[in-house]
Amino acid sequence: MDKTATSVEQYMREHGYVWGPEPEMYSPTSGLYTYGPTGAGLKRNVESVIRQAFVSAGFFEVETPIIAPRDVWEGSGHLGGFIDWVIECSQCQSTYRADKLVEEKIGVHAGNERLLDIIQEHQIRCPSCDGAFTPELHPYHLMVRSDIGQRESYSRPETATMTYLAFHRYYQFFRKRFPIQVFQIGKAFRNELSPRQTIVRGREFTQAEAQIFVKPEEEYADYFDPLQFTEAATFVPNEGDSQSLTSQQALDHKIVSKPAYLWSLLLAHQILRDMGIPADRIQLRQHARDEMAHYALDAWDLEVYTDSLGWIECCGIHDRTDYDLRSHSTHGKDIQVVDDQTQEAFYPHVLEIAFGVDRPVYALIDMHLATETVKGEERVVCRLPSHIAPITCAVFPLVKKGELPALARQVHQQLLAHGIVSLYDESGSIGRRYRRVDEKGVPFAITVDYDSLEDNTVTVRYRDSMEQDRVSIEWLAAHIQQEAA
Amino acid sequence: MDKTATSVEQYMREHGYVWGPEPEMYSPTSGLYTYGPTGAGLKRNVESVIRQAFVSAGFFEVETPIIAPRDVWEGSGHLGGFIDWVIECSQCQSTYRADKLVEEKIGVHAGNERLLDIIQEHQIRCPSCDGAFTPELHPYHLMVRSDIGQRESYSRPETATMTYLAFHRYYQFFRKRFPIQVFQIGKAFRNELSPRQTIVRGREFTQAEAQIFVKPEEEYADYFDPLQFTEAATFVPNEGDSQSLTSQQALDHKIVSKPAYLWSLLLAHQILRDMGIPADRIQLRQHARDEMAHYALDAWDLEVYTDSLGWIECCGIHDRTDYDLRSHSTHGKDIQVVDDQTQEAFYPHVLEIAFGVDRPVYALIDMHLATETVKGEERVVCRLPSHIAPITCAVFPLVKKGELPALARQVHQQLLAHGIVSLYDESGSIGRRYRRVDEKGVPFAITVDYDSLEDNTVTVRYRDSMEQDRVSIEWLAAHIQQEAA
Repeated sequence: MDKTATSVEQYMREHGYVWGPEPEMYSPTSGLYTYGPTGAGLKRNVESVIRQAFVSAGFFEVETPIIAPRDVWEGSGHLGGFIDWVIECSQCQSTYRADKLVEEKIGVHAGNERLLDIIQEHQIRCPSCDGAFTPELHPYHLMVRSDIGQRESYSRPETATMTYLAFHRYYQFFRKRFPIQVFQIGKAFRNELSPRQTIVRGREFTQAEAQIFVKPEEEYADYFDPLQFTEAATFVPNEGDSQSLTSQQALDHKIVSKPAYLWSLLLAHQILRDMGIPADRIQLRQHARDEMAHYALDAWDLEVYTDSLGWIECCGIHDRTDYDLRSHSTHGKDIQVVDDQTQEAFYPHVLEIAFGVDRPVYALIDMHLATETVKGEERVVCRLPSHIAPITCAVFPLVKKGELPALARQVHQQLLAHGIVSLYDESGSIGRRYRRVDEKGVPFAITVDYDSLEDNTVTVRYRDSMEQDRVSIEWLAAHIQQEAA
Repeated sequence: MDKTATSVEQYMREHGYVWGPEPEMYSPTSGLYTYGPTGAGLKRNVESVIRQAFVSAGFFEVETPIIAPRDVWEGSGHLGGFIDWVIECSQCQSTYRADKLVEEKIGVHAGNERLLDIIQEHQIRCPSCDGAFTPELHPYHLMVRSDIGQRESYSRPETATMTYLAFHRYYQFFRKRFPIQVFQIGKAFRNELSPRQTIVRGREFTQAEAQIFVKPEEEYADYFDPLQFTEAATFVPNEGDSQSLTSQQALDHKIVSKPAYLWSLLLAHQILRDMGIPADRIQLRQHARDEMAHYALDAWDLEVYTDSLGWIECCGIHDRTDYDLRSHSTHGKDIQVVDDQTQEAFYPHVLEIAFGVDRPVYALIDMHLATETVKGEERVVCRLPSHIAPITCAVFPLVKKGELPALARQVHQQLLAHGIVSLYDESGSIGRRYRRVDEKGVPFAITVDYDSLEDNTVTVRYRDSMEQDRVSIEWLAAHIQQEAA
């Protein structure tokens, strides 16, 4: 299958994964999307994988407000720093991000202070009308203003800041014992100038961000042992070559400064594999010095290889040091803590594992979508692993007349009662119905036929192998649950 | 225990359930709260109960944007109608909601058009300074403005409107077969003038709203059979007395117009019981005519009795008729559909089951919190059912020296690896640790002692009965999972 951003988007739109930009019924705003029944189901399953992995690694979930007043975003550095520099065409008034313009036209990645010079030097002109640009850059704010209680306020551009603000509460709750591990899964907003690539760069998106608060000088070998992860991972350091390393090798090579940081990288790597992304499509790429966010001492991205867009960032793992707690303590109330033993005051350091949820959803669809020729016929199949596929079963009566539909509905209801997501379909030939659910990515298709009326069994047909089994209705739910685990 | 809104809030604050108003570190905005580790865990479990019940009842989850442009909210009727009428003190400029003022001072529930007359007639004065009110009402808009893409936009005040906008997509996805059942769980925002009662009336809150699209003239007896629900429920119709009725009796009495509407009421009732709310704390109350929202033909609330606040609304079940699809079709693109058989064009009708998620969380804490005297000692215990309790286990080494902590940590890790939320605590006497987890609502406390080193067993102590069992470490996770189911 020739996969492009356009063909993947079209697949997502046609099969209930992603619709938009929304509101389609009115005049749409780019960067806003709806997840349909398949898309929302897949997204919930991706979130479950992340949540389960964080809980198993000792993190506790929290949930903070989305909106916070201006002073919070001054403290976090977003209000001053969360800006794209744009340039306007003097002729047609189109506005462009200066860095993207320079990247596309000249192929260089330049700092903000050099952008205007480069544009003028290379006489870059407006891509819309070929007009000249005005000779200045303007700041374009990415924060979405959302006043509440008649105060100047903004919707969060990530969850991390809001998670940090309750640190003094965690410190009491966890009885002043470090490390303190919390995570939050929720919405964030960035008013991108020109959002593209549907859910890969939406203006509303979902983040799943875990934070580890530590004493700066401690190693926490008992808590965060990188050697618990045994599979090799591909590391792309900002200097030197890409290499595949086991956790032991990565430790020996001192690929990052702290074992707990390496543990965080490998936990995130494990989580992507838990979703059903093969290791050979994942790489850990270290940020270049000038690419790092204002809060990061060191930063690595987990990138996933998609057929349509190449490598895309799905998770960032940051050594944020004491930047956040120190900065918020300067702007707001001081939440410095005092060490029990040494009686010294300090700001805890933070290691952060920040997943975007929408991007792995895109990547999973992209990589599992295939066109195959079987017995001379072409089929489109989405081979999402069954534990993550949004719809687990489809139930079909062989024909839509007589007694079969009533029994098929009963089988469908029984699966639903067991919490198995099931789709009922009685229209068209069985072959067509198989093809429809193959396309949507449903791993198990169940057909109720005339034998079912006699012996209480049904046919289970497996999406990937296209093989069939005969299973008793009594044990069907248990069989599906086992197969889908 | 003498439960008041203040004592429940204090409990929630001290035990990691709800903190705020946020940002506590800066200057707080009322109506914004953080769910700490216990609160967020409980909220996730409440959402899981609702999600599981909706999926089992044949609904598919969807996820739409939170923010939409102005024209959507004109189409939904919120921009014109989503207003509180307020009155200002001529002396101290304090602003009050006129309806609440009249309700509190005179004890009557009056329509907007009569509020000013009543205030003047009864010479109601400012509760802050006893000054006179100015002789006019002003509109106060409840929508949170959140411009995106440089367009006038608003954050949704409920999820339903955004769910309706994708109807034309569901119609295709579900192959034009009614009923079409979808639901959405997500955030909504209302800029209340003076939010109170913490999470019961926050400015940010979570809704779990299911929508059933039907052909107006059909009954769907196969899909929505009220008789599948067997427990009696308390009905409070807007005329006549409160009565406890089985589903058969409710059908016979024609307590609501359609069987599918009764099914919706009883499904919602079942969901609250699934959370662990006893039936004698739940009533179905029909709205008075002048209390109904602009979109509702009939409306019932599921109310839950709390010790601190009395009856609170946790769910609204509405017969919205074709109001929404017709209105959006007038303001936006037309999504009228054509009946296969009759070839007649029509707008589907909507039955809605709209849960607030924050309120059942409050109610569950409120009703399960107790003070007991056991063996002459008082204990505070939160008796949340174990399937919904946010922290399932606590693991204690008997003493914090020697070999016990290492083994206890191992037991704790093993529980985490099975996805069981576990808390590790080694500080203070065992008695104190039991009391701490009783207070937080942790159903199972596991102690690792010297015998554990010999025979690989641990003590499991049950919060409610305070009885103890000896369980082998090998089977501990399975034992806990079974007990907590």
